[in-house]
Amino acid sequence: MRKIKILGIAGSLRKGSYNKSMLRAAQALVPDDAELEIFDLEGIPPFNQDLEADPPQRVKELKSKAKSADAILFSTPENNYSVPGVLKNAIDWASRPYGDSSWEGKAVGIMSASTGAMGGERAQLHLRQSFVFLDMHPINRPEVIVTFVSQKLDEDGNVTDDYTKDKIRELLSALVAFARKFSSE
Amino acid sequence: MRKIKILGIAGSLRKGSYNKSMLRAAQALVPDDAELEIFDLEGIPPFNQDLEADPPQRVKELKSKAKSADAILFSTPENNYSVPGVLKNAIDWASRPYGDSSWEGKAVGIMSASTGAMGGERAQLHLRQSFVFLDMHPINRPEVIVTFVSQKLDEDGNVTDDYTKDKIRELLSALVAFARKFSSE
Amino acid sequence: MRKIKILGIAGSLRKGSYNKSMLRAAQALVPDDAELEIFDLEGIPPFNQDLEADPPQRVKELKSKAKSADAILFSTPENNYSVPGVLKNAIDWASRPYGDSSWEGKAVGIMSASTGAMGGERAQLHLRQSFVFLDMHPINRPEVIVTFVSQKLDEDGNVTDDYTKDKIRELLSALVAFARKFSSE
Amino acid sequence: MRKIKILGIAGSLRKGSYNKSMLRAAQALVPDDAELEIFDLEGIPPFNQDLEADPPQRVKELKSKAKSADAILFSTPENNYSVPGVLKNAIDWASRPYGDSSWEGKAVGIMSASTGAMGGERAQLHLRQSFVFLDMHPINRPEVIVTFVSQKLDEDGNVTDDYTKDKIRELLSALVAFARKFSSE
Repeated sequence: MRKIKILGIAGSLRKGSYNKSMLRAAQALVPDDAELEIFDLEGIPPFNQDLEADPPQRVKELKSKAKSADAILFSTPENNYSVPGVLKNAIDWASRPYGDSSWEGKAVGIMSASTGAMGGERAQLHLRQSFVFLDMHPINRPEVIVTFVSQKLDEDGNVTDDYTKDKIRELLSALVAFARKFSSE
Repeated sequence: MRKIKILGIAGSLRKGSYNKSMLRAAQALVPDDAELEIFDLEGIPPFNQDLEADPPQRVKELKSKAKSADAILFSTPENNYSVPGVLKNAIDWASRPYGDSSWEGKAVGIMSASTGAMGGERAQLHLRQSFVFLDMHPINRPEVIVTFVSQKLDEDGNVTDDYTKDKIRELLSALVAFARKFSSE
Repeated sequence: MRKIKILGIAGSLRKGSYNKSMLRAAQALVPDDAELEIFDLEGIPPFNQDLEADPPQRVKELKSKAKSADAILFSTPENNYSVPGVLKNAIDWASRPYGDSSWEGKAVGIMSASTGAMGGERAQLHLRQSFVFLDMHPINRPEVIVTFVSQKLDEDGNVTDDYTKDKIRELLSALVAFARKFSSE
Repeated sequence: MRKIKILGIAGSLRKGSYNKSMLRAAQALVPDDAELEIFDLEGIPPFNQDLEADPPQRVKELKSKAKSADAILFSTPENNYSVPGVLKNAIDWASRPYGDSSWEGKAVGIMSASTGAMGGERAQLHLRQSFVFLDMHPINRPEVIVTFVSQKLDEDGNVTDDYTKDKIRELLSALVAFARKFSSE
């Protein structure tokens, strides 16, 4: 059985981003029949349709990585009750030009980490609305929404909380199963 | 009666953007008791929270212009059934740092232009969800959604269609009235 | 200054509904310059457009009460990540027939009580989307979302928690101010 | 290969409902390896959680039909920019009591017919949000949104428009394929 390739993308450019921590944790917990590569959105400029036919180099790399993946794993904070502009911007770039989307048909999972008692669920639901247009296949469960995340990391930003790790493991397992369902088409 | 200051922002960087055309049309149609300044998002980099306390110069300008406005007028396409990343990114920058949002309490109107038979209504509804968090006050009517927009412009990108102009005029009038309601607090 | 009339509607028919408790608490906390009447959705049948011109008696009562109110206060649980059908059904009835909506131009506030750690925010956001079409004016803050509600009531279902009461008071105050803004048009 | 069982549900009680017409058209166009039964929501009372353990007879029938289906096909108008209360109410009933949902794991398709130039897309997106909680698997494409529907029916309410029929056929084909993917688990 070939390995499922997962591309992990965090919705934050902050150096110490909690959602980057989540992706690193996922990378360490990925099941044997899959692999997870992380793509950092640093260097992706604001989308300009005038450039979509020949986009900046970093965008070309994103498109290439997304196309060769079976599944995408977004880990994203929620900004202003919605998807961070930084993440949506990357999605917009790689969905273009028309007819050359990098996202089409991919299985997709979502995680969110936030420092408060809530946060992430609204951003996740807006992302899901984009997935309809993009024809991506999001898993429904588990919905990984990590609250009070700063209590669940060590001082180097590594996830140490067992419950959180279990949830990430569960999500990866569901994502890989989903990807097999759709990549076998 | 003092003039209501409206800041117009287009959700596209494309040089010939239809939504930039819409804003220019609005600028020409603004009522006597208001004025409309257009802010171009060119030069606003991707949001990075590490820089929010001392953001790039162009972001400072956006924040300053938004703060001094009574009302905001967004004219935006819809990308992937949601708000363009470019526009959401600008909203995120100017909402930060915590406690120093530039959007708070502003009246807000939305227009959308698209080349097809539909498009814009989903982006507008996602924007409205952000307005809840940002404590902005969107007008409900008219909802300006211009379809088949390329038929409604001349070759220089100026709006020539009378119905579209009437709708823009109606929106501006409602926006100014709403802004007076909220700025008189 | 005339009293602002608020109509309170709970999104549940359950006899011991927590959201009915919330409305009773609001009734006891209403400011002096307002009054709050509660309308129970019991007896509102499923909407049938064939009957909209001459709806059942209980629907006529709802329409009449809503029309004479300055503001609406919904207190609603979240069912399946959205508005309870029971509440949406009542909204649909009273929005019809076309041109005779009972909701138009009303100020509106929303509260939600749930037994878990989350719940209500998604239902509230879907309600807000309907308010755009209905041309209602929802307040943005406070967003009253009461979690673990069973710990905040006495055995007769009365709200006893001080923080919850403060939030309800704050919402009522904002709602009355908003209603004055819009009823003075 | 066993036949895929599809349950069709219209989001309107109106006798001459366009969305009922759409379901009848679908029934006539269902592929050979599937069958489509229509369930009319007439007789489903407003949801009351006090009765969920032993619901009214008509609700029991809905639950039984939904459970034995592989896929659900909703055909629904949009009321007030969201799902009709009548449809959401039926979904709420059959999702309860907790742990006994009738919807879990089903493939699902959505159609909308409306008399105007728009309508249905917002209701469909709200439905999709409920599907996340309900763990249903909606197809992304085609999105069947039939505008100006009255021009596409004969006087007996039968769909006569070829393009509309093609879209329904395409949706049924995608739905059956999706159902096989998920029922083979």
